[in-house]
Amino acid sequence: MKYFWIVVLLITIPIYAQQQDEKQIREIYKEALSNGKGYTWLNYLSNQIGARLSGSIQAEKAVSYTKSIMDSLGLDKVMLQPVKVPKWVRGIPEFAYLESSSGFTNNVPVRALGGSVATPMSGIKAKVVEVQGIEELKALGTSEIEGKIVFFNKPMDPTIIYTFDAYAKVADQRYSGAVEASKYGAVGVIVRSLTLRLDDFPHTGAMSYGDIPLENRIPAAAISTNGAELLSTSLKLNPDIQFFFRQNCKTLPDVESYNVIGEIRGSTYPDQIMVVGAHLDSWDLGDGSHDDGAGVVQSMEVLRLLKATGYKPKRTIRVVLYMNEENGLRGATTYAAEAGKKRENHIFALESDSGGFSPRGFTFDTDQGNFAKVLGWKKLFEPYMVHFFEQGFSGADIGPLKKDKIVLAGLRPDSQRYFDHHHSENDVFKHINKRELELGAAAMASLVYLFDTYGLNNSNN
Amino acid sequence: MKYFWIVVLLITIPIYAQQQDEKQIREIYKEALSNGKGYTWLNYLSNQIGARLSGSIQAEKAVSYTKSIMDSLGLDKVMLQPVKVPKWVRGIPEFAYLESSSGFTNNVPVRALGGSVATPMSGIKAKVVEVQGIEELKALGTSEIEGKIVFFNKPMDPTIIYTFDAYAKVADQRYSGAVEASKYGAVGVIVRSLTLRLDDFPHTGAMSYGDIPLENRIPAAAISTNGAELLSTSLKLNPDIQFFFRQNCKTLPDVESYNVIGEIRGSTYPDQIMVVGAHLDSWDLGDGSHDDGAGVVQSMEVLRLLKATGYKPKRTIRVVLYMNEENGLRGATTYAAEAGKKRENHIFALESDSGGFSPRGFTFDTDQGNFAKVLGWKKLFEPYMVHFFEQGFSGADIGPLKKDKIVLAGLRPDSQRYFDHHHSENDVFKHINKRELELGAAAMASLVYLFDTYGLNNSNN
Repeated sequence: MKYFWIVVLLITIPIYAQQQDEKQIREIYKEALSNGKGYTWLNYLSNQIGARLSGSIQAEKAVSYTKSIMDSLGLDKVMLQPVKVPKWVRGIPEFAYLESSSGFTNNVPVRALGGSVATPMSGIKAKVVEVQGIEELKALGTSEIEGKIVFFNKPMDPTIIYTFDAYAKVADQRYSGAVEASKYGAVGVIVRSLTLRLDDFPHTGAMSYGDIPLENRIPAAAISTNGAELLSTSLKLNPDIQFFFRQNCKTLPDVESYNVIGEIRGSTYPDQIMVVGAHLDSWDLGDGSHDDGAGVVQSMEVLRLLKATGYKPKRTIRVVLYMNEENGLRGATTYAAEAGKKRENHIFALESDSGGFSPRGFTFDTDQGNFAKVLGWKKLFEPYMVHFFEQGFSGADIGPLKKDKIVLAGLRPDSQRYFDHHHSENDVFKHINKRELELGAAAMASLVYLFDTYGLNNSNN
Repeated sequence: MKYFWIVVLLITIPIYAQQQDEKQIREIYKEALSNGKGYTWLNYLSNQIGARLSGSIQAEKAVSYTKSIMDSLGLDKVMLQPVKVPKWVRGIPEFAYLESSSGFTNNVPVRALGGSVATPMSGIKAKVVEVQGIEELKALGTSEIEGKIVFFNKPMDPTIIYTFDAYAKVADQRYSGAVEASKYGAVGVIVRSLTLRLDDFPHTGAMSYGDIPLENRIPAAAISTNGAELLSTSLKLNPDIQFFFRQNCKTLPDVESYNVIGEIRGSTYPDQIMVVGAHLDSWDLGDGSHDDGAGVVQSMEVLRLLKATGYKPKRTIRVVLYMNEENGLRGATTYAAEAGKKRENHIFALESDSGGFSPRGFTFDTDQGNFAKVLGWKKLFEPYMVHFFEQGFSGADIGPLKKDKIVLAGLRPDSQRYFDHHHSENDVFKHINKRELELGAAAMASLVYLFDTYGLNNSNN
């Protein structure tokens, strides 16, 4: 008889567990879709606060606002973690035109890249050399480049299905184009906006001069894709046209800012920490609704969903709203350094920084054993149209936490529209769909629930 | 040695076939994403022609325009199939308000349901009884309903993930609300718009009086969800408020219209017909970009993609752009009846009528053997983020073709935003994303290619 009961238990415990999981996930989705708070929070963050570039007043308002939301959620701890951040300011609006002959000009939309130096107040006017990336620039060399503006015009490849991969293949033009072009005597850099659309929005983003001296730094701006097409066509008709641009952005001394952190303390393993994160800062052109306001409110919503469904986590679940992902990653590096100093045991970190679109799945950056364990949960997500579980890079802000045993995860929403908005004036609240945002938060909360319930692979917790 | 070669063949033929399939599908996606024509066609259909209600001048323009596109594709045959369609016209703009006491009024947005009769020119003003569906109406009975306006206010359930299922659960209010309410002496019907958003757009759609006599027909209109919330709240505060609405829509005699048909004749089995279809008509409030302009241009794009990639189908591939899906399904029934008369052998039909959003997969309405065969192709779609293969209803226009051996299939795009637009002023071209539209066409063309290559289950073709 003893064996009979063991057999019964062996059969019924997993069935019971699966039913419990299904029930909890159903409750999470139900709460998210019928009573979700993220859309209202994001409306405030986007429309009452707006763009949140590191070091700006709006970034500080966003710190206060999200802290006040977390204070209202009945968490066990809410805190601000000091972070020194760079402060770059755009200044007066940029202005640019191409000049086919004296007096014949076409204005084109440009915006300074984040971190760029200014042009002289009178602007820069020079001939243009168009290249399809840094390799082509190097092949041309000083004789072709000296004294000119380099125009990086390699487009994102539309045939790549996952748009972030297309982005990654050409983003070096924006990040390193200026430092590379300056080696060959260029006087300025214009970069095709990193979007798959043809439109009039310049898309800014981070660039770096590395450690080259100040006097060698040349100004760099993004041009809209329609502007890039016009410039490229004009150059084919007449290689001698000139390009003018003016910008007066600058970098000020670093300022004090904060990561915003809130947590529910684990009932059984409080020292095992699970992070759910997103970045609070944004570029300054839109209001940062998709990048990454969506992730910010989804992360806070994860805590609210777990509490509202009556779930008591065994492990500590900590939301971290990182400051300065866009132009420095100082929040992420500070958080990881502090965690290291305190010898905190982070076992899991989930990031949402790919827009507030309909969730398709997750990436996981971890070892085979943990990935195999996670794959076992995939069927629980399929009724919610979440099908994609793959290994891969999972997020910039959680990256510094990477070590042997941790599972890093990234929410993967549908990527098709992301670069329509990314880093441009077009990243605004009206492009957020309430249900898509809520479904993302529910998927995240469900994954956090499962990880809290089952822990790392080969642990007894 | 003979067996050795048989074994080699048995191993290499499937590998070779799979590589061929992967290659052809890759070519289809490449062409769709780098040289797609659907977005340009849809721009014309939506912005130069506009709403295409059956019997309207715009519907006839859409017939000519899509025929001209098919004429330009180098098909083997393009034809118009005559279809008699109903002609219902909206007339002058509707007007409605609720009146809490004499002179204290709030205007609310309403639009007549398609097929509704007019109110008297002076409108209808009456007390309101709110119900949560037809069952509640029946329970109230004549004593509570006679002389009143019935307000159907059951919302779509936000916790249902696939929004079409939430729609199906409450659409009977709109379709049959008036005929049911008239049995209890109601003087008019107001129906909550079938959308998950709270906004100011009324969503129209088909309704039917069945065969009740003309004099018993009462007018029916959709009210925006914000309007419905206001009306419901007002009724709770004061059950005696009155509701006024005026509309002067009417049904004219049937008129002649057309299905637009184009085909590539099969090289080996020309008598085996595969249909790819969508509906050319739309409601009259927006421009019908998602419902179903997207499906129309995707269907034509399927033929273009197969030709552009050099694929020569073995079976006949026929695009059918059906007229009058929205308020009569006459195009679909005519097409199926003609096919029956000609004893045509339809083996497959694919419909796109769920919006131009990011494709998630397909439904299949067929027997187990064919479904099992189709499931074997699923892995070919996964690199394109198409994961959902399920059995189920696959489309209204292909429905009349259903018989034993045919495989009916429906493209299933992401459903979250569909009812934000469906049948309202908000279904307009600016809400179409070019890549999402193109990915849908590519997924459809890939499925058509596979079906053409492998045919029905247990056939030797």
